[in-house]
Amino acid sequence: MSYSKYVKYPTVKIENRKWPDKQIEKAPIWCSVDLRDGNQSLPQPMNVDEKVKMFKMLVAIGFKEIEIGFPSASETEYEFTRKLIEDNLIPEDVTIQVLTQAREHLVERTFEALKGVKKAIVHVYNSTSELQRRVVFKKSKEEIKELAIKGAELVKKYSEYTEYTESKFIFEYSPESFTGTELDYALEVCEAVIQVWKPTKNNKVIINLPSTVEMSTPNIYADQIEWFCTHLSDRESIILSLHTHNDRGTCTASSELGLLAGADRIEGTLFGNGERTGNLDIVNMALNMYSQGVDPRLDFSNLNEVVEIYEECTKMVVHERQPYAGKLVFTAFSGSHQDAIRKGLKALSESKSEYFEVPYLAIDPHDLGREYEEVIRINSQSGKGGTAYIMESDFGFILPKSMHPEFGKIIKQKSDSLGGELTPEQIFKYFKEEYLENRTPYYLRNYRIHSIQDIEKEENKVDIEAIVAINGKDTKIEGIGNGPVDAFFNAMHNNNYNGCKFISYDEHALNIGSHSKAVAYIQIESKEKRYFGVGISDNIDTASLNALVSALNRTKLN
Amino acid sequence: MSYSKYVKYPTVKIENRKWPDKQIEKAPIWCSVDLRDGNQSLPQPMNVDEKVKMFKMLVAIGFKEIEIGFPSASETEYEFTRKLIEDNLIPEDVTIQVLTQAREHLVERTFEALKGVKKAIVHVYNSTSELQRRVVFKKSKEEIKELAIKGAELVKKYSEYTEYTESKFIFEYSPESFTGTELDYALEVCEAVIQVWKPTKNNKVIINLPSTVEMSTPNIYADQIEWFCTHLSDRESIILSLHTHNDRGTCTASSELGLLAGADRIEGTLFGNGERTGNLDIVNMALNMYSQGVDPRLDFSNLNEVVEIYEECTKMVVHERQPYAGKLVFTAFSGSHQDAIRKGLKALSESKSEYFEVPYLAIDPHDLGREYEEVIRINSQSGKGGTAYIMESDFGFILPKSMHPEFGKIIKQKSDSLGGELTPEQIFKYFKEEYLENRTPYYLRNYRIHSIQDIEKEENKVDIEAIVAINGKDTKIEGIGNGPVDAFFNAMHNNNYNGCKFISYDEHALNIGSHSKAVAYIQIESKEKRYFGVGISDNIDTASLNALVSALNRTKLN
Repeated sequence: MSYSKYVKYPTVKIENRKWPDKQIEKAPIWCSVDLRDGNQSLPQPMNVDEKVKMFKMLVAIGFKEIEIGFPSASETEYEFTRKLIEDNLIPEDVTIQVLTQAREHLVERTFEALKGVKKAIVHVYNSTSELQRRVVFKKSKEEIKELAIKGAELVKKYSEYTEYTESKFIFEYSPESFTGTELDYALEVCEAVIQVWKPTKNNKVIINLPSTVEMSTPNIYADQIEWFCTHLSDRESIILSLHTHNDRGTCTASSELGLLAGADRIEGTLFGNGERTGNLDIVNMALNMYSQGVDPRLDFSNLNEVVEIYEECTKMVVHERQPYAGKLVFTAFSGSHQDAIRKGLKALSESKSEYFEVPYLAIDPHDLGREYEEVIRINSQSGKGGTAYIMESDFGFILPKSMHPEFGKIIKQKSDSLGGELTPEQIFKYFKEEYLENRTPYYLRNYRIHSIQDIEKEENKVDIEAIVAINGKDTKIEGIGNGPVDAFFNAMHNNNYNGCKFISYDEHALNIGSHSKAVAYIQIESKEKRYFGVGISDNIDTASLNALVSALNRTKLN
Repeated sequence: MSYSKYVKYPTVKIENRKWPDKQIEKAPIWCSVDLRDGNQSLPQPMNVDEKVKMFKMLVAIGFKEIEIGFPSASETEYEFTRKLIEDNLIPEDVTIQVLTQAREHLVERTFEALKGVKKAIVHVYNSTSELQRRVVFKKSKEEIKELAIKGAELVKKYSEYTEYTESKFIFEYSPESFTGTELDYALEVCEAVIQVWKPTKNNKVIINLPSTVEMSTPNIYADQIEWFCTHLSDRESIILSLHTHNDRGTCTASSELGLLAGADRIEGTLFGNGERTGNLDIVNMALNMYSQGVDPRLDFSNLNEVVEIYEECTKMVVHERQPYAGKLVFTAFSGSHQDAIRKGLKALSESKSEYFEVPYLAIDPHDLGREYEEVIRINSQSGKGGTAYIMESDFGFILPKSMHPEFGKIIKQKSDSLGGELTPEQIFKYFKEEYLENRTPYYLRNYRIHSIQDIEKEENKVDIEAIVAINGKDTKIEGIGNGPVDAFFNAMHNNNYNGCKFISYDEHALNIGSHSKAVAYIQIESKEKRYFGVGISDNIDTASLNALVSALNRTKLN
């Protein structure tokens, strides 16, 4: 590794720095960029339905400004913009925002997408960094500034067309790659744009200073923001906005310190989705304020649901240790932490204090619709994923995902009643007891199958004849079907066992080789409840039939 | 949500604050706490083998101080300590560190664990926060300070026993929950501990100031560290250490600003593993320095391997957007980013500059043994997980995990040769072409099975008689086995098809109902290469036999 390939980021010449003495006293204007920057970086971008779902959730959370796309760059984003406007999906108090580059045909198409909108932010940008000027655009400072001015003029021109007299537009400009731009030059470009737009105190424009790539410790970004705010010629006509990325893992800090340094507005996404390492996680920053007694003006009182919809729409996963939202955030593993939390909760309830204070809990999980969990190893916490993990890694059973909650609950009950750690062997013992060793009321003694299959003609017929012990009494059953499971299921039905529905079937080999055993998992539904059964055999048919019998027996237990 | 339940964190009265004007010029002393704090917070803690593997990797990365456990609190940690010492696994230049509470029987047991060690840091702690004093310990400031003094005396006493004359001990004290402790009181307690240990410039002790729970913006933590450093009576005899947690998502910033504020040493873990939201991610902080031209004195030149071993040992997953290490960190989705990166890489190679500078790449991925990837939707990036996701969400096929790379590679080749986006329908089309529609050399026309199964007696026999077209010529084959797949496999072998081994079998229903189709995936090995085959049918046996035929046909393609 050759660290000498890299140059140290320059510091800001700043005197009488003010931001380190400030505290965050009120929420900024939040702008969600989930549907643009967030969406653009997804391995599988959202479709229109998913975007609508996400948009509605963002509105429900309380976002008043939502960047919904780059309509001139993609058909889907154009259509989505039209849909929001034509289906009247934008509440009165919510402003949509669209991004465009400073090129006429793109600006034109952007305004086409906005026809009929009541209010919108038109966000125009061009890259201003020294590196991009040199290697990407091969243009001088003056030329790049001209590009910005042209962009500003273009959006102004289109906004004044008569077809938009009913629409209210707010302008936003970003010197993209701001953190790679000389500070005084970034100011010069922004001032030139402001000159075109001529904002006033009552008709402000947004200047957004992105850390497109995070390049320094967050205090330097804060210095840049404070310098910028104090050098702007007409600070009061500007809404100063931040848009941070997380390349150095410190973008939450950058946005927070940038807010101390004078910013008014914050762009970001839920759970920090976005290019590369992601954008600012607005959930994180908002709840940081909340936990300091500041109203974040965003509602995360049902955070689990937000996670669920987010994961569904983006197909990304919220990490288990993601602040506030991760699955492990309100769990305590250490005995001394558990003890302190227990005592803290007791003291809190006794004191009837209006303030929440409990050791190791940065926030009351109930405020987010979540629960504190004491984790006794391999049980409560591991109830679902953990138990399934043990079954797979220690014993080779790959339980179907929909079976995890069922078996997890069984193991949690066992460990709660035992009050201690469960070993993998104990978990396996309970698995066998629950799924493999229950022989009442049904037990499959033997069966014969006669199967004639013609694959080309799609003609197939399986006859089964089986001896099933029903409450100990051997009973002969017969059935016909297109496969062995179907034939056996019919045979059981014929024999008066009815009223249950087949839901799922999974089967896999337990180890390598065609002589290895197969394990089958079958889920059925009986009286609106669902039950898994498991069967093991050298023979894939026998494993399946036994799984069905196991599931049927389990319906009788409950 | 009721933000008024929370009190604002107090600021530090500090004059003439120095840290915002400083820059990080050299690496701190790093201490990995992966095997203690990291391990303690795992749903499934590491076993001794995994700990040894992790320890060896930490040594290979270049850690010189490694906290290996809390040997008095757990048998496994005691044994692991003994194993490291007795098996001589600790290199000369590496110092292990052990944690203990300030109670005599625990200190005694800790020193027992250390018998025969050449050098060790003994880390003693007690909680000092106002809240814990009040609700957990119900003790006064004076009493809590006495506890700390007692702890310091105990470790000093045991270290002086004759059986340890060959061992060198370094002491570390943590006022646990430092961020919840009044700053002047924390100093008072630390000074009392220092009084017991009487360090010198040549025989320093470690004072570690943990943000056990992160409670404020990182600038306030930095203020605390600067205040503490300037108020310590004998700063030069102290190694000042930080140990940050990530409750507010800003612990990397806290450690970095704390370092500016005067700290000498940083405790943390790989990828930020640790209680709740985790500890400081040392990989992140070290590579932040690296990308600023500072030698981090840790080697992450093969970061993918570090991720792999980490995930194997901890069973945690490194998030796709984790700085430097995440799968998506060096990918570009946006066309304009891809264009800028391409131009930047070209300019870099033409300029022969000694400095790395490419738009949107915070660091050269090759330095970490990684690659930059341009992502054309649903292909390269999605090659593995993404394609499998589409197959499941759009078409209901749950491909076995070991099949993802095989099918991902096929789709990547297709999309690379087409040079554009693949739709889900195209992906499915290629799936069918590859696995379901290949009928040469083998095609199963029809078969008959006669199966007699006695489950109790474990007697089972399946006779199969099948017509298989081999290169278009119908051939009758017969076989016997303990299940239908086994019987058919034997029949194919009998008929001169041999030399391949059965590897895996998976099967599941495609939708709800016993009449639904089943899909089977069978993997075989032929001439040391592995091939999946897929079959679909109403009948689980037919699906399996067709999967086997599909796999056999695929061995002939390559």
